[in-house]
Amino acid sequence: MSIHEECGVFGVFTKQPADVSRTVCTGLYALQHRGQEGCGIVVNDDGTFVSHKAPGLVSEVFHEQALCAFPLGSMAIGHVRYATTGGNGAANVQPLLVNHQKGRMALAHNGNLANAAKLRDRLELSGAIFHTTSDTEIIAYLITGQRLKTASIEDALSKAMDEFEGAYSLVLMSPGKLICARDPHGFRPLCYGKKEDGTYLIASESCAISAAGGRLVRDVMPGEILVFTKDGMISRTEHCHQEERKFCIFEYIYFARPDSVIDGMSVHESRLKAGKNLADVHPVDADLVIGVPDSGLDAAIGYSRASGIPFENCMIKNKYIGRTFIVPDHRGDQVRIKLSVTESSVKNKRVVLIDDSIVRGTTCQRIVRLLKEAGAREVHMRVCAPPFLHPCFYGTDIDSSDHLIAAHHTVEETARLIGADSLGYLPTERLKDLSLHSYCSACFDGNYPTRIPDDTRKDRFERKLSEI
Amino acid sequence: MSIHEECGVFGVFTKQPADVSRTVCTGLYALQHRGQEGCGIVVNDDGTFVSHKAPGLVSEVFHEQALCAFPLGSMAIGHVRYATTGGNGAANVQPLLVNHQKGRMALAHNGNLANAAKLRDRLELSGAIFHTTSDTEIIAYLITGQRLKTASIEDALSKAMDEFEGAYSLVLMSPGKLICARDPHGFRPLCYGKKEDGTYLIASESCAISAAGGRLVRDVMPGEILVFTKDGMISRTEHCHQEERKFCIFEYIYFARPDSVIDGMSVHESRLKAGKNLADVHPVDADLVIGVPDSGLDAAIGYSRASGIPFENCMIKNKYIGRTFIVPDHRGDQVRIKLSVTESSVKNKRVVLIDDSIVRGTTCQRIVRLLKEAGAREVHMRVCAPPFLHPCFYGTDIDSSDHLIAAHHTVEETARLIGADSLGYLPTERLKDLSLHSYCSACFDGNYPTRIPDDTRKDRFERKLSEI
Amino acid sequence: MSIHEECGVFGVFTKQPADVSRTVCTGLYALQHRGQEGCGIVVNDDGTFVSHKAPGLVSEVFHEQALCAFPLGSMAIGHVRYATTGGNGAANVQPLLVNHQKGRMALAHNGNLANAAKLRDRLELSGAIFHTTSDTEIIAYLITGQRLKTASIEDALSKAMDEFEGAYSLVLMSPGKLICARDPHGFRPLCYGKKEDGTYLIASESCAISAAGGRLVRDVMPGEILVFTKDGMISRTEHCHQEERKFCIFEYIYFARPDSVIDGMSVHESRLKAGKNLADVHPVDADLVIGVPDSGLDAAIGYSRASGIPFENCMIKNKYIGRTFIVPDHRGDQVRIKLSVTESSVKNKRVVLIDDSIVRGTTCQRIVRLLKEAGAREVHMRVCAPPFLHPCFYGTDIDSSDHLIAAHHTVEETARLIGADSLGYLPTERLKDLSLHSYCSACFDGNYPTRIPDDTRKDRFERKLSEI
Amino acid sequence: MSIHEECGVFGVFTKQPADVSRTVCTGLYALQHRGQEGCGIVVNDDGTFVSHKAPGLVSEVFHEQALCAFPLGSMAIGHVRYATTGGNGAANVQPLLVNHQKGRMALAHNGNLANAAKLRDRLELSGAIFHTTSDTEIIAYLITGQRLKTASIEDALSKAMDEFEGAYSLVLMSPGKLICARDPHGFRPLCYGKKEDGTYLIASESCAISAAGGRLVRDVMPGEILVFTKDGMISRTEHCHQEERKFCIFEYIYFARPDSVIDGMSVHESRLKAGKNLADVHPVDADLVIGVPDSGLDAAIGYSRASGIPFENCMIKNKYIGRTFIVPDHRGDQVRIKLSVTESSVKNKRVVLIDDSIVRGTTCQRIVRLLKEAGAREVHMRVCAPPFLHPCFYGTDIDSSDHLIAAHHTVEETARLIGADSLGYLPTERLKDLSLHSYCSACFDGNYPTRIPDDTRKDRFERKLSEI
Repeated sequence: MSIHEECGVFGVFTKQPADVSRTVCTGLYALQHRGQEGCGIVVNDDGTFVSHKAPGLVSEVFHEQALCAFPLGSMAIGHVRYATTGGNGAANVQPLLVNHQKGRMALAHNGNLANAAKLRDRLELSGAIFHTTSDTEIIAYLITGQRLKTASIEDALSKAMDEFEGAYSLVLMSPGKLICARDPHGFRPLCYGKKEDGTYLIASESCAISAAGGRLVRDVMPGEILVFTKDGMISRTEHCHQEERKFCIFEYIYFARPDSVIDGMSVHESRLKAGKNLADVHPVDADLVIGVPDSGLDAAIGYSRASGIPFENCMIKNKYIGRTFIVPDHRGDQVRIKLSVTESSVKNKRVVLIDDSIVRGTTCQRIVRLLKEAGAREVHMRVCAPPFLHPCFYGTDIDSSDHLIAAHHTVEETARLIGADSLGYLPTERLKDLSLHSYCSACFDGNYPTRIPDDTRKDRFERKLSEI
Repeated sequence: MSIHEECGVFGVFTKQPADVSRTVCTGLYALQHRGQEGCGIVVNDDGTFVSHKAPGLVSEVFHEQALCAFPLGSMAIGHVRYATTGGNGAANVQPLLVNHQKGRMALAHNGNLANAAKLRDRLELSGAIFHTTSDTEIIAYLITGQRLKTASIEDALSKAMDEFEGAYSLVLMSPGKLICARDPHGFRPLCYGKKEDGTYLIASESCAISAAGGRLVRDVMPGEILVFTKDGMISRTEHCHQEERKFCIFEYIYFARPDSVIDGMSVHESRLKAGKNLADVHPVDADLVIGVPDSGLDAAIGYSRASGIPFENCMIKNKYIGRTFIVPDHRGDQVRIKLSVTESSVKNKRVVLIDDSIVRGTTCQRIVRLLKEAGAREVHMRVCAPPFLHPCFYGTDIDSSDHLIAAHHTVEETARLIGADSLGYLPTERLKDLSLHSYCSACFDGNYPTRIPDDTRKDRFERKLSEI
Repeated sequence: MSIHEECGVFGVFTKQPADVSRTVCTGLYALQHRGQEGCGIVVNDDGTFVSHKAPGLVSEVFHEQALCAFPLGSMAIGHVRYATTGGNGAANVQPLLVNHQKGRMALAHNGNLANAAKLRDRLELSGAIFHTTSDTEIIAYLITGQRLKTASIEDALSKAMDEFEGAYSLVLMSPGKLICARDPHGFRPLCYGKKEDGTYLIASESCAISAAGGRLVRDVMPGEILVFTKDGMISRTEHCHQEERKFCIFEYIYFARPDSVIDGMSVHESRLKAGKNLADVHPVDADLVIGVPDSGLDAAIGYSRASGIPFENCMIKNKYIGRTFIVPDHRGDQVRIKLSVTESSVKNKRVVLIDDSIVRGTTCQRIVRLLKEAGAREVHMRVCAPPFLHPCFYGTDIDSSDHLIAAHHTVEETARLIGADSLGYLPTERLKDLSLHSYCSACFDGNYPTRIPDDTRKDRFERKLSEI
Repeated sequence: MSIHEECGVFGVFTKQPADVSRTVCTGLYALQHRGQEGCGIVVNDDGTFVSHKAPGLVSEVFHEQALCAFPLGSMAIGHVRYATTGGNGAANVQPLLVNHQKGRMALAHNGNLANAAKLRDRLELSGAIFHTTSDTEIIAYLITGQRLKTASIEDALSKAMDEFEGAYSLVLMSPGKLICARDPHGFRPLCYGKKEDGTYLIASESCAISAAGGRLVRDVMPGEILVFTKDGMISRTEHCHQEERKFCIFEYIYFARPDSVIDGMSVHESRLKAGKNLADVHPVDADLVIGVPDSGLDAAIGYSRASGIPFENCMIKNKYIGRTFIVPDHRGDQVRIKLSVTESSVKNKRVVLIDDSIVRGTTCQRIVRLLKEAGAREVHMRVCAPPFLHPCFYGTDIDSSDHLIAAHHTVEETARLIGADSLGYLPTERLKDLSLHSYCSACFDGNYPTRIPDDTRKDRFERKLSEI
């Protein structure tokens, strides 16, 4: 599986100045699976904003020295980044920290605007200059632009939301307020919680609230704006429309951490159900069920329970292979270094192999080969998602269907290409079993909840070039 | 579980000069679980030895720039280190590279000499000076000392082995030979394999041979010396005595990777058996079985199969918490950042919790509390090892029984201290089911295969001090 | 002397794509004396801009790996920074790289706008957001704002210059053009040169053109805009007004490197003349003349020649004391570590000590004490500048007269405070001997060539804060 | 001038535990000119030795974090290293820290043993193994070997000195004593001083004692051993023989810092005398005298005074070019980046150019060309040393005469090769004017004070290789 994760956001609001950078750091550790390319924290020390951000993992960027350099504060926000748009440059690492006519604002964002290109064109024509190629800077411009005409930052945000189309889970910080908002479709997750001492926590996933020592209160509703000030929390719901809810179903299948609960559904449970559904729809006579770690494991157990075929934990992922992994001399064998199999378990066995999804098919092919080389007699591939057929404009890293194996091959052809003895996808109609609410499955069925952008290339801003 | 792993060694011998540093690097990635504190590689480029070693993970020390700086060579050795003896200093990182009367020698070592203190005293009295506080330097002195009186490096090694007591799996390299040896008890694993192009690979565990693209040929026999030269491989067996075999049973329970096969037994199978035995000896009426990742997972599946109680994969380990993990503001909650539980799975459930072993009991206590806070009604702890009662002198990081909870408390007291509703250890007599050969279980039963050293403190060499 | 230097800019334009990042790097090495806090390079590879910048020295930021990562290009610009405004944050390191409606622009700037605060207020009210607190971003906004209304980037720059007041020597790069401009007063130096292969070089000082292998063609005239394209160089002179010339006289005294020639005057010659003038105006009966390295040396030789008192090179500056110099245990003695004296030379001697200027007087005091402790019988201080009495708004790091010793003490009092036996400043009327053209000496006489800003505090943008 | 400097040593002994690492660090900053490749400090905290050492400058290795990690102590030693022998490996960075039968010893060393190869052979035959290829490890073995047979470490040192031939200025530290020694010839400098609080300081040069806040007491005499304990200082003189004094004359000419006083002679004065002698012996009709910075400046002033030709400070050395200087695109012009000339000063002038010495002649050639390109009409080269004709075995980095231009060319040929209009060396018989005592000038006249080693190659230990 090689779709990449997207970003994670975190925020904290305390009654008294506290070591809030460490709280955010703890939250970012728990959200690291949502982005490993860069991370940042901005602390609000009574109106002064102190920022540290850099490419790298939380453990690399926020060493003891970096954390010690932060002041105490009553608010802070943080971000972990996977570059879905905006390139890999250090300039694009969030939170974004800007100065505008009414003061300072820090902003962390997860998602993608479907109308980013149009908004950017309009802003540039009015004189805006851009330091980054990320959507976040567009969002910042629209909010601060509205701020000149409105009475408060939350009014400005609400006005700006009239113009955004697409996915955005935002955390933003002004000198005196911590604010979060989720787009009216609720594509990306966002929730808040509380610690016993009254501290508020905002996070992309509930696992980060638990890690930071809080209890989940509830999800931020699609369209909702929450404003945290010294006087407490205010909810604004003018953008909430129940009928627009379209949570990204792929968050349950792959992105989120299994110990998170999103919109009332445990991710772990959702994956068990995916496995159970696969067993119903694509049964097979086999000796054992294996899950591709980490996201295929729960579904494998679900398949095992429903089918009665024993689950085996016999695929090992090397947890020390980091981002900077050096390609060894025998290049074709990278998967062999990242994944291995306990041969005694699979020798002469008929194996059901569960993975979360298939994008290009190359990784699947190598994993099937690994099992065959270890002696597996048959390998029956079962996939927790329907075939990927359409690009995503809301944050998943698929910007065209060019490389999607399912867009160009039948199921039978795909099985043959990856070397599997059989292949079964989760049918689109079964996705509803994975979520309590309505959801977006546009990458599978092409039903987009928003208008489709003209230029969907991820590097559209990088490409722009004109002689001046 | 907080017993720390020990070291891993790797070696490669090719017919033609090749990029052997990358092959070793690949092997070290697969052995990283045996030591995360430091690592090193020495390449033999036609008699010139080029070395790079430093504290840190393989991915940190061997970035592309470091690997590019190595020349091609026909031999190389490598090491990953966990500091069981010798302190954390950079000077102690292996391989050790020394110059002596007959040339150069590089040495990588896994294990601990039980008679290290005596040997060191004797060497110092004859004028030796020591740069490190590790056993490896003692081994180097004895080999090079014998080398002055013998016709070959392998003769010198064999003579030196007459004097070693304890655990040592060695890989050493002279200008023209690659040699490995395993102590006559065979405390620590060591095996060799071959690639299709004839390249020989030596590794602490078979998983590293697979990762490097080779096939396991066999284990190095306890007491055996293997010499690899341009003319092929020679086996010397003058120290092999079948009746002395005493493989460390804790390698199966905890140290080794499940996809390794050691002395004919798959580590994965051995752990499944441990779980099955626990189910036989300590049955309990419960709703689900959970394993503490990573080493408790296989036994949990074994317990589940034997008992019929469903296995749940509902304890999540944060894989991004590295060595440099920063302690957050709420210090008591570190385990909450490293481990988390999917609450929906355990709420109101009676849980069987499987861990590999209990040392001090503090981690167990926190994990049990985590489950209770997540709503578990009962937590029944089952442990894949007997109670730890005695120190180990052969490489496991337990140098006295002072902090061993089982040495000071009954099973019932321990259960109460860690908050479990019941507690069951694997009985000593069941250990034989985990191994095909005879084994060392001295840490459980006090039956030491060698003489017991006078001073067993790990820092005995650091403490030494005299006015001169 | 503790006034800090300001920034340096560099640009290169080649006929054919070349390794222009190395050419810029060479130039920045030669300009490093103008700023040690950060540096950056942007290469223009056929319209794609590749940037690398970071806090640190050129030798730290542009190691081999960083230079190798740059593509070939036909244009590049670079910057070394001393933070006169804008704080020390990484965000403020230049060149600034922005995207606007007509494409990309990279900008490097030396100087300070006197009307920065007013311009920024106006921009913010029209919706602009600021990532940095430097003047450079204001300049970028005004140029790109004009670009929407003009036919070319150079027209936009010319229009924007109508609004700038103060000091700016600019190098900017669009996808197809390299442009440089100097403010109509010409406060800061800027010149261009050519290599034998036709490559154009732009630099703050001529020493950088020589270092990069070129020959100085001439200074950019005050108010001039030069545009380099594939078709050659165009000069625009609509902002050139001979009567406005006001070159910063302190560049000759302190900032510039002695081997540079600025506006027709060799800096080395200018300093020799300062020393000669001091000897005329403040003669003294003494045994030797010493210069405080490095900027006092030339004037000391000038004084020696005019007075006949022998020059001695007996004050040694430790060239290994870097920016990260660790304060030792005896804090008062920092000057002793940075500077030392050959005792045999000064023992029992009457010394004339030449320094470039006196700001607070603390460093002078320590140097005089150093000489007295080394046995000097008398120390007669001679200063190559008049007394500092007024703040500078054009780039020199003096934002108020609060700490200026001369603003609060007579010459006699100052001599006593620093421990000197006599003290003589260069009279204001003698400054004209140091320059061929008219100059700005506002910091000495208060005659400002522009309007005086309302808020002159360097951290005025950092301080801004409002509840929103 | 491209002969490289050798090492520097420093030691401190206090009555009460103090922050001695900072004192050593200050001293090493002042000795940095003697070696820039690596440095280290060992602190003695009541018998526990804490060490930090690494390749790099003092400012790079001893950042605040590194200094904070040191404990307080009553003794510490330090070292800056230029690799005259032993290769560039990290293992060779000093101080050397070893454990032997009587405890621990730390050792820092400046110089080279002429009989190193013989001593090493003997040690290896007795079983010694070597981690490094430096002389320091040989010295450590001989001292600790004697320690087994003697009553004290200073007795052991004295016995060991019977076997050393060549140059060594040593500082060593046992758990209770700080000891320093200088070889009987006194090739390399070594002195000690005192602070007002009674702290003793030992240093290679007196400039480091001043920097650390002490006063020079006197030089350590050739052959003398000084022992510092809680009871005070003891001097042992059994190896002192007045007639053997042979201080390296090249220390005055090039190695030492001008503000140091060595064996009663100010280095600054010594260089002024060299210049005066050159003016006597090689007068020329010229317009100005220029010195190549930094070591040629004093002699240039001496020449100027004696000849009456004006001195000009018109050659500028770029002080920001560090060890990691990146070679630019136009490789031939490296000297142009490191050195520059104020053209107005030399145009159409007849120049006397003073440098400290000529080794290969390549740097001289480039400097002469630089002056000619700047318009100098004539360049008359004057050199403060006689022609280099013989290798040095005592620490100067000339291990054979193969590349010495003077060994293969007459003075006239050399002048032509380097492009000078005339060339004059300081005659050997004039060297006596530079020193108060007898000196070694073997590199000029071949009169070696010790036996000449058989194998004089610097890399003799690296080359050693045998099949075993």
